[in-house]
Amino acid sequence: MLLPISDAINLIFSNVKEAGEEELLIEETSGRVIAEDVESKIEMPPFNKSAMDGYAVKTSDTPGKLMLTEVVPAGIIPEKKLNKGETTLVMTGAPVPEGTEAVVMREQTIEGRDYIEIQKKAIKGENIAFKGEDIKKGERLLEKGEIITPGKVSLLATLGYRRVKVKKIPEASLIVTGNELCEPGSIELPRGFIYNSNAYSLMAQYKELGGKINYIGIIEDNIENLVDSLSKAEKANIILISGGVSKGDYDYVEESIKQWGGKIIFHYVAIKPGKPFLFAKKKDVLVFGMPGNPVSTLVIFWKFIGPAVLKMQGAKELFPEKIPAFFKGNYSKKKDRPHYIGVKLIKSGNILTAEYIPSHGSADVPSFCMADGIIEIPQEIKAIKDGDLVEVRLIHPPFRYYER
Amino acid sequence: MLLPISDAINLIFSNVKEAGEEELLIEETSGRVIAEDVESKIEMPPFNKSAMDGYAVKTSDTPGKLMLTEVVPAGIIPEKKLNKGETTLVMTGAPVPEGTEAVVMREQTIEGRDYIEIQKKAIKGENIAFKGEDIKKGERLLEKGEIITPGKVSLLATLGYRRVKVKKIPEASLIVTGNELCEPGSIELPRGFIYNSNAYSLMAQYKELGGKINYIGIIEDNIENLVDSLSKAEKANIILISGGVSKGDYDYVEESIKQWGGKIIFHYVAIKPGKPFLFAKKKDVLVFGMPGNPVSTLVIFWKFIGPAVLKMQGAKELFPEKIPAFFKGNYSKKKDRPHYIGVKLIKSGNILTAEYIPSHGSADVPSFCMADGIIEIPQEIKAIKDGDLVEVRLIHPPFRYYER
Repeated sequence: MLLPISDAINLIFSNVKEAGEEELLIEETSGRVIAEDVESKIEMPPFNKSAMDGYAVKTSDTPGKLMLTEVVPAGIIPEKKLNKGETTLVMTGAPVPEGTEAVVMREQTIEGRDYIEIQKKAIKGENIAFKGEDIKKGERLLEKGEIITPGKVSLLATLGYRRVKVKKIPEASLIVTGNELCEPGSIELPRGFIYNSNAYSLMAQYKELGGKINYIGIIEDNIENLVDSLSKAEKANIILISGGVSKGDYDYVEESIKQWGGKIIFHYVAIKPGKPFLFAKKKDVLVFGMPGNPVSTLVIFWKFIGPAVLKMQGAKELFPEKIPAFFKGNYSKKKDRPHYIGVKLIKSGNILTAEYIPSHGSADVPSFCMADGIIEIPQEIKAIKDGDLVEVRLIHPPFRYYER
Repeated sequence: MLLPISDAINLIFSNVKEAGEEELLIEETSGRVIAEDVESKIEMPPFNKSAMDGYAVKTSDTPGKLMLTEVVPAGIIPEKKLNKGETTLVMTGAPVPEGTEAVVMREQTIEGRDYIEIQKKAIKGENIAFKGEDIKKGERLLEKGEIITPGKVSLLATLGYRRVKVKKIPEASLIVTGNELCEPGSIELPRGFIYNSNAYSLMAQYKELGGKINYIGIIEDNIENLVDSLSKAEKANIILISGGVSKGDYDYVEESIKQWGGKIIFHYVAIKPGKPFLFAKKKDVLVFGMPGNPVSTLVIFWKFIGPAVLKMQGAKELFPEKIPAFFKGNYSKKKDRPHYIGVKLIKSGNILTAEYIPSHGSADVPSFCMADGIIEIPQEIKAIKDGDLVEVRLIHPPFRYYER
């Protein structure tokens, strides 16, 4: 029996060693995993603050005519305490004077030279942001292992952080095998050859995780060359190998890893595409061997390698919610293993539909690359059809998109 | 009446000038907008290819004992044509010999020294990927304006592209106003001051779009300084201004833009948070003025500035599907303008719930930055409550997350 996906993930995770830390400018950290707990050293607001351009008053004085004693712009401390019968003009963001019970918007006053007529009954606390109402001193606001977002960058700045500790992104090396491969950019494809695509999609996927791959190149399919390349690659935390993992006469990856001194932890997983997926280890270096078909490579990265890279960074959130949608199309399969297929998301009214993109299989990049998401069809399911409820894992980065 | 959001977006879009182009290595282009149509110069597969390690046969010869004439690894052209009574061992990815009708997996054969016993009746076309079945010569595969993903990087490589033309990301300058602001990293916050957070969240948001902001700094709130800073900023395609856009005594941005020679296109939009949002233009330079509250800044960027940056790149997809979910919580408002609020996505069974994160308003960064998404509550709606159907615009980058 093939290894179930969840067992494969557990085996990968139990072999992960956490990456080190580095300190970065906060604006560089979105998408990174924070490596320290963040507790506030300040209160926010740090003082009772006016939320409006308006008049600081005592509620019992309103409505009524009040003496203007002071004008307080943001960034300035009021000089005077607010007494009965008095008012102070406070700008948005300015501290309100001691004794203030409410701030009345300028639009609700008649402004005279020295006297201001407050036209409404002020309500206690109105238009005041009270000291500490958003953040209390000592409050834990971010925890080690959270993924930083622009909102959290805003929070870090609010707390006075100019830099923050984040986990390093693991370094990765990449070896590609396949004697039929030719690097793109060559003038003409020799007969019997195809262009190498996996190296470039893997570099793009790894870049989305914030990292950069050290690309070793296309290595001739023999054990000597592969062992030599593995030795070159082992400075990294992760070695990615594309191709050569099936059980064919020319598939030398498993044997090469053994001769190089690595330990095979698993080989072959119950997944389609990507069955010959291999995971090995030498000391703390993790080795991921993927079958050479381009769609397999994309899926194996999303399914196993991406989570491993986040796990190495100590991320807490590895598995967020998938999006429920209604399937459109017909897909049938054997009860052999879970299948992953590409879908387009279409919304009509409030109904979200995941439309199957027909494919010729794991080499059919043109159809798969139109997908907004992928869905898993479990091992025991033989077919899904129009209207079946499925769960979509989004593969487009929606934060690049915007709604009207 | 305040300007409706859709009118504001149309006004921005009608003032956009498309950015120039640059040629990049394909692995650097994920998230970028492609600036050329891509038509295939090759067929994929480029030849009839074996999808398995197996034996090339004529179906009428199967089951039966066949003479082995040749072994063809991937990357090698078969020397012989396949005749009746013969078989050729072809490896995955190798071209099949002329005359091949099917490939039978090795596991379904008994391999002798010179003769191979095919144990099953082969079906025509079995285990052959036919020339051109995935991609036809001259087929249009990508169109100008598409956003490149790792899958599309794979496709570009498959087609032989080493570099591709993409739109340049607009250059942005950033001016921050607010006399109460102090840069984070300072040892202690002076009384009456708060830390500047908007500069950093904007830099993080702009970085997610692939760009880098030229940060001018915190500028003292007066017209002379602002005009001077606008002149420094105008080398960029976009000027972002944080703060100073309300109609207060110390809000000099609108007047400064006019004195600098810019034209105000709109000021104030029917949106909460972010009502004092301002849009101006000088020649081809777009100016976006945002109110100083940090939550307003995040929302205005997602809602208006991000789409404008994509529009400047000629992107076709600016407004993808939002995700339907059931609201959890209670939120009431006036019928004054659409409100944007942060929600957490929670899935239970197949039900996706968008849970309201209570907030003290547009300065309450700690609560807002916990959101997975934002929802719009339309102008005419007074309240939403448990179980109401809402549409969530995801703000986390889910491609960084993985499902089990």
